[in-house]
Amino acid sequence: MLFLTPVLVAVLCVVIVWIFKNADRSTERKKEEPRVRAEVHPWVDEDLKDSTDLHQAEEDTDKWQESEEEVEHISFSHTRYPEKEMVTRSQEFYELLNKRRSVRFISNEQIPMEVIDNVIKTAGTAPSGAHTEPWTFVVVKDPDVKHKIREIIEEEEEINYMKRMGQRWVMDLKKLRTNWIKEYLDTAPVLILIFKQVHGFSATGKKKVHYYNEISVSIACGILLAALQNVGLVTVTTTPLNCGPRLRVFLDRPSHEKLLMLLPVGYPSKEATVPDLKRKPLDQILVTV
Amino acid sequence: MLFLTPVLVAVLCVVIVWIFKNADRSTERKKEEPRVRAEVHPWVDEDLKDSTDLHQAEEDTDKWQESEEEVEHISFSHTRYPEKEMVTRSQEFYELLNKRRSVRFISNEQIPMEVIDNVIKTAGTAPSGAHTEPWTFVVVKDPDVKHKIREIIEEEEEINYMKRMGQRWVMDLKKLRTNWIKEYLDTAPVLILIFKQVHGFSATGKKKVHYYNEISVSIACGILLAALQNVGLVTVTTTPLNCGPRLRVFLDRPSHEKLLMLLPVGYPSKEATVPDLKRKPLDQILVTV
Repeated sequence: MLFLTPVLVAVLCVVIVWIFKNADRSTERKKEEPRVRAEVHPWVDEDLKDSTDLHQAEEDTDKWQESEEEVEHISFSHTRYPEKEMVTRSQEFYELLNKRRSVRFISNEQIPMEVIDNVIKTAGTAPSGAHTEPWTFVVVKDPDVKHKIREIIEEEEEINYMKRMGQRWVMDLKKLRTNWIKEYLDTAPVLILIFKQVHGFSATGKKKVHYYNEISVSIACGILLAALQNVGLVTVTTTPLNCGPRLRVFLDRPSHEKLLMLLPVGYPSKEATVPDLKRKPLDQILVTV
Repeated sequence: MLFLTPVLVAVLCVVIVWIFKNADRSTERKKEEPRVRAEVHPWVDEDLKDSTDLHQAEEDTDKWQESEEEVEHISFSHTRYPEKEMVTRSQEFYELLNKRRSVRFISNEQIPMEVIDNVIKTAGTAPSGAHTEPWTFVVVKDPDVKHKIREIIEEEEEINYMKRMGQRWVMDLKKLRTNWIKEYLDTAPVLILIFKQVHGFSATGKKKVHYYNEISVSIACGILLAALQNVGLVTVTTTPLNCGPRLRVFLDRPSHEKLLMLLPVGYPSKEATVPDLKRKPLDQILVTV
């Protein structure tokens, strides 16, 4: 038995060190966790970063190699207005857009669909990273589909209000009388769901990177809002929190498309109200150098 | 000496296990590295996520608690057009914006500054998360400041082209004849640098969260692009890669403001050309349900 002592000691030491080192590592892990948790922002929609099914895509991009011909350059044709007309046009456009408000009370009256086609064509003139045009506009008119969208959003929104959002944000939104009842999703004659394509496909079917896709699609949304205001239709810019994957699957959109925004569009209802908010004056948003 | 054997064996074992476990961990680290590297996107501007000096802010937000009065609601005043006029207006606005192109050849001719004020006021009508209006527009007219901005951007861009960008992106941009020489930064009479405010301040000086600030500011940029096109001025939408912190410090903007976009603005130069690109037809961007 005495002969075994060195071996026993050795085994014991190995076991003790092993346990000690493992405990060490799990302590490190625990130390890291609160740091990560402190950076969690309950108001950040994780759907915007929804990366389901995208690992394959990312791996494939390395293999994307295609000979692209240089695009021919043509002379740029331009309409120039006299200075006085420029000032007038800029003033009038400001006054038109300054009347835009986010309206949550939308009439169920039908709207001309040719106008919707035109405003989406207009949104599609937006610039995009390397001209990738990474947007899909899904226009929903079908009442049953609209209602199902409402159900999905209200289910998730109730959870957001109850659990996910910070107390601060609930307070901020209370001022604007926002809650998880979204009647406009049923009443608005049209819902426009705007998806960003996080990658596309080349002519040969290979995956094609979409640089700055979220910024590009947001710019297109800005142009869409201007186009809607220009024809006298109202909307409210919404980013349905945590509903992206469910709505994407429900609307049968592919996994490289992620929901960025949802705009219910129509005429305002007769009794529509808006919060009495002011915009910042120019000197609070402009710095001249 | 024989007496020491168990102790020696123990020490040896401890040393061997320690070395083995450490080797194990550094192998794990090595294994992780290529995975991380595979997910690095050279075209993603790290400045957009520039979080210098922001840790304090994030910590403080937890303490942000203020009693906010509910904002009064007022009835919404609305201009309604007859259907035929809606169709005409939507068609004309589409035709106006469809003529917009990203123009890299900008004349040094001066432009009316009242127009610049108006287009920025127009951009400021954009919706924003919880009405935070998280934008600052820095308008640069001073030739020396413009030149210094050019120097900063060209320095960083050369590094981008040479080192940071993937081969793919350099190929994609080659089609558009983009390179790191940005003459328009000198010639354009005005540069508009658009900063997103990642947080703001309440009336009492406490930090105030800016929900969805990047999307909100991008929407404002979309409206700004529409307003510029409406007055016959040209620009090119640029996101100066990796220049954000240097330009922010150079322009003396506070650390909660991050550069999102830079627009050189002016009339097109006489010999301006644009790549002969087409936009996707409506049926490729619109899905109706």
